[in-house]
Formats: sequence, structure tokens, C-alpha cells
Amino acid sequence: MKDAHLIERCIGGTQVYRGSFLDVRRDIVALPDGQTATREYIVHPGAVMVLPMLDDGRLVMERQYRYALGRVMLEFPAGKLEAGEPALACGQRELAEETGYEAAEWARACRIHNACAYSTEGIEIWFARGLRAGQPALDHGELIDVCLVTETELDALAARGELSDVKTLIALQWLQKMASRSVATRLAVEPMTASRR
Amino acid sequence: MKDAHLIERCIGGTQVYRGSFLDVRRDIVALPDGQTATREYIVHPGAVMVLPMLDDGRLVMERQYRYALGRVMLEFPAGKLEAGEPALACGQRELAEETGYEAAEWARACRIHNACAYSTEGIEIWFARGLRAGQPALDHGELIDVCLVTETELDALAARGELSDVKTLIALQWLQKMASRSVATRLAVEPMTASRR
Repeated sequence: MKDAHLIERCIGGTQVYRGSFLDVRRDIVALPDGQTATREYIVHPGAVMVLPMLDDGRLVMERQYRYALGRVMLEFPAGKLEAGEPALACGQRELAEETGYEAAEWARACRIHNACAYSTEGIEIWFARGLRAGQPALDHGELIDVCLVTETELDALAARGELSDVKTLIALQWLQKMASRSVATRLAVEPMTASRR
Repeated sequence: MKDAHLIERCIGGTQVYRGSFLDVRRDIVALPDGQTATREYIVHPGAVMVLPMLDDGRLVMERQYRYALGRVMLEFPAGKLEAGEPALACGQRELAEETGYEAAEWARACRIHNACAYSTEGIEIWFARGLRAGQPALDHGELIDVCLVTETELDALAARGELSDVKTLIALQWLQKMASRSVATRLAVEPMTASRR
């Protein structure tokens, strides 16, 4: 097998912390060279991020205090998958809860891995169009400013290094390639889904 | 203050797990509305990723098994900051240890946040040119295939969703904008540093 010299095999492990949010594991792995090593990581259910675009091209975004970083971050709406929840349903739920918007058209862009050294998290990025405004329904402890930003403004923030959230930067990258054939082809394979909650 | 309605304040906390790699905290925070909430997160020293470009334009990359994801990932060389280590020194060290290459010219691109919901990690992205090959010196338990990839190949992988590591995708985004004025201006502000280890 092509990657046999890289692949590690679990030979034991335990959950070392289970909080209200974080599930932390510590496994012992057998390396391909016969040695062993310890791998510590977060088990994460995965997340969905939505890039919601109004008919006039403006993007629906959020400003939220991120405690671990001690700063307010500008991000697209996102949230964790619930048990058994399909990604599209998660995106629709999070968009509605956090911003109040519902969308008529949905298209999947990609799936990214944001902390491959220590988290199982994968984030699916979806595009949402045909937006209709409504009332947010935030969870306890979730304080969010919803704002409308143009792609030009976002691009300027990224160029100045003031937009630093990885999922938001990668969604911007996809947005800027929407006109190019490579991405257009991909989105055509997974066509926009007409869907209302 | 503009963001007073978003900012959370620590009113207590504890380290809930300290492993060989992960440092996990659980804090109680006061929300702006007077309520309290729990915030669990990883304290991470930060990391540096290097985009090393050969004179012929090919990029030096790594294939590495990422245990948390259970798959081999294609990434640019990266590693964690040691205590008190400047970012440039970290990039030079990680590039040499993992790939054997040393670089004559270095330029800082940006700083990204890859898990703002639960980690303090920030990743600085640097460009390295004027490469000279050498011998890698990998840590115990670090098994890496070094490979050379063209920007065209990388772009095709990204468009097909086969390149999913966030720091690598964002470095590709910067690479593709190097010709544009916005990025050229920024790199001119922080000029290429001639530096050998």
C-alpha cells in the first residue's frame, strides 16, 4: 500500500477529559517503524459554515467575541453538527438561529480540516442564496452582531491581515473563484438545492 | 467602547488536562448581559507554516499521516513555536528539520486563526525562497514524505476538494495573489529578510 510507511495504528487509548464542549482523547499508536507514540486530540462532531449572499451581492456575516483568542472575530455563520444531522440541515439551522435568514438555494463548496494535528474537526462550506430575513434565535451565551459586508471590503480586510478566521478566508477564496471554470464545474456536479426549512 | 456588548470577562478557571501535547482549560466567564457561561479551550503556543518555493517555481510540501483524521494530508511544512522563539526562527527551524531545506529569503504573509471556537492557536504564514537542499532531522514519531508540487497541481487539488488543510489552502490563496498589488504592497512593507541559520 502506497502510504504504509506513514500510517499509524491505534493500540490503546482513553478519554482524558469530557467537558460540556470538549472531548479529549489520548491514544497510544504503533508507528510503521515499530516504535510507539502518544497522540492527544479533540473529538469534534464537525461543523458547517454558510456563506450567505444577498441578491445585491452583499454577504451576511457575524461579529462574535472569541474567548480563546480574546478578540472579536468577523466570520461567516457556522455551527457544530448535532448527532445524526445532515450537513445541509445543520447549515440551514445555524443560519436561521444566528442570523434569522432562510435561503432558497444551497450549494456545497468543500470540506476543510482546520486543526489536523489535534482535532477530528472537519468544516463543510456551503453557499446560500435567495435569502429571506427573519429573527435570530441565539443560544444562551451566544452574543452575535450580524453585519452585511461586500466582497471588496472582505478582500481588503484579508489583504491587510485583518480577516484571520480560516473558514471565512477559504470561503472568500471559493467566492473569488466562482467565475472560474474549475469551481463552476464542481458546483454544477452538486447543483443548487431548492430547500426551505 | 464599540464591542462592550460582545466582550466576555474571565471570573475563574482551571486547567482540566495537561498532557504531553494538549493543555486544556475550563474558564467561567461573565457575559456582557450579566449572565455567566463556561468556555473550554486549548492553550496552544502558536505555530509557523512555511511556503518554500524552488527557483523553478515548484513548492516543497509534505505528506504526513494525521492520526486525528485517520488520513495522510498534503501540507506545507509547519510546526509549533518553542518558548520565546521568534516566528522567523521557528519557520527556519521547522523547514530545516522536516525537509532539510534552508532558505536565503523570507517574507511574512499573514497570521491566521484556525480554531477560534476552542483554541488559542495562531499560525503565521511565511514565504521562503533561495532554497538550498539538505538533510531532514525529524523528531521521534514524525514520519514525513517530502514532495515537490507545482502551483497548478495544487490548484487542481484544491478545486477538486482534495486539498483540505486550512493553512495550506490559505497559503495557496496568498501565492495566487502575489502578483496583485494589494499583496505586493503588504510584502513590500515587510521586505524579504536575507537570513541563514
